Amino acid sequence: MNQKSTHVVWEQSLITRQDREALNGHKSFVLWFTGLSGSGKSTLAHAVEKKLFEMGCRTFVLDGDNVRHGLSSNLGFSEDDRKENIRRIGEVAKLMMEAGIIAITAFISPFQVERQSVRNLIPHSDFIEIYCKASLETCESRDLKVLYKKARAGEIKNYTGINSPYEAPLKPELVVDTDALSVEESVITVIAFLVRHGVIAA
Amino acid sequence: MNQKSTHVVWEQSLITRQDREALNGHKSFVLWFTGLSGSGKSTLAHAVEKKLFEMGCRTFVLDGDNVRHGLSSNLGFSEDDRKENIRRIGEVAKLMMEAGIIAITAFISPFQVERQSVRNLIPHSDFIEIYCKASLETCESRDLKVLYKKARAGEIKNYTGINSPYEAPLKPELVVDTDALSVEESVITVIAFLVRHGVIAA
Repeated sequence: MNQKSTHVVWEQSLITRQDREALNGHKSFVLWFTGLSGSGKSTLAHAVEKKLFEMGCRTFVLDGDNVRHGLSSNLGFSEDDRKENIRRIGEVAKLMMEAGIIAITAFISPFQVERQSVRNLIPHSDFIEIYCKASLETCESRDLKVLYKKARAGEIKNYTGINSPYEAPLKPELVVDTDALSVEESVITVIAFLVRHGVIAA
Repeated sequence: MNQKSTHVVWEQSLITRQDREALNGHKSFVLWFTGLSGSGKSTLAHAVEKKLFEMGCRTFVLDGDNVRHGLSSNLGFSEDDRKENIRRIGEVAKLMMEAGIIAITAFISPFQVERQSVRNLIPHSDFIEIYCKASLETCESRDLKVLYKKARAGEIKNYTGINSPYEAPLKPELVVDTDALSVEESVITVIAFLVRHGVIAA
């Protein structure tokens, strides 16, 4: 959509992101989980948050539960609405990061172009895309909410993997093979990556 | 707008707001500044943030600068768009509060019904509405961005106080008379209120 805001010039905050990071004792950044429904994104995002919190980090998970019922409650599941949903989530993740928080998102976010748009909002090294890689078969066999079945039956439109595409990330910062790894192993993989890249302390 | 999201059931966070408050050593809540353009909302919001930050609190100011250029960049200044802007800000302030942050907002937010909608999102004692009370004459005389002048000339539509109403809060938690008080005095007034009401430590 177009930039519609005009007459918009405001003063800068007196507290910088660096000030907030210093108070918190850790960096802030965005962990963007992407993958099919049933690929374990949300479970992994919450488990990674728990681990980071136990390490003393300020964290927050943006997921369907707190976004679709609130900020995006006036959006449906058409392609335009799904794009606008991801756009809003990207903007909120950015604000959270600026507030000193490790913002963690867990949305299918199936389209490369949308994820790239979010990436473009955020300084290069602060956007960490994690692809939860699982086969459609695995995801469909999990189908906890019976949504794949409904999509196969044509009862749900635009369901990613069935009647809407999932575009796997081309160059994600990290791939977690959730077909092969347990949740615990996946958490270790993510935390090890963050330590190795110097964004959190061991 | 209507709740359009369907099939939306997700798991709870493993970390509670109380956990985050314990880590931070302070409560989280929403400070909602409202008042005419030029009433000193934004200046006061940033000054209060600075003071709270120096007291060791995690804070963040949502204002035109970081909202109108981002989350609400696809909204204009029609009545519907202004309402949607305030709705989004309310939802983000709530998320920030849930993340353990003292969320501070600085928007004209002229309509009682919108502010009430935001209030309804947030637990009773966690929403603190602060009315920056200044006469239209004072605000207009400040007119740093020459917007009142343009509104008087008909070049800006829906400008609060000129060709769109400002509905003063009926029962704000605090009124700050920014006609009479300096910024420093206003900050002291706000901080004293927060201490008196037990939401921050002295």
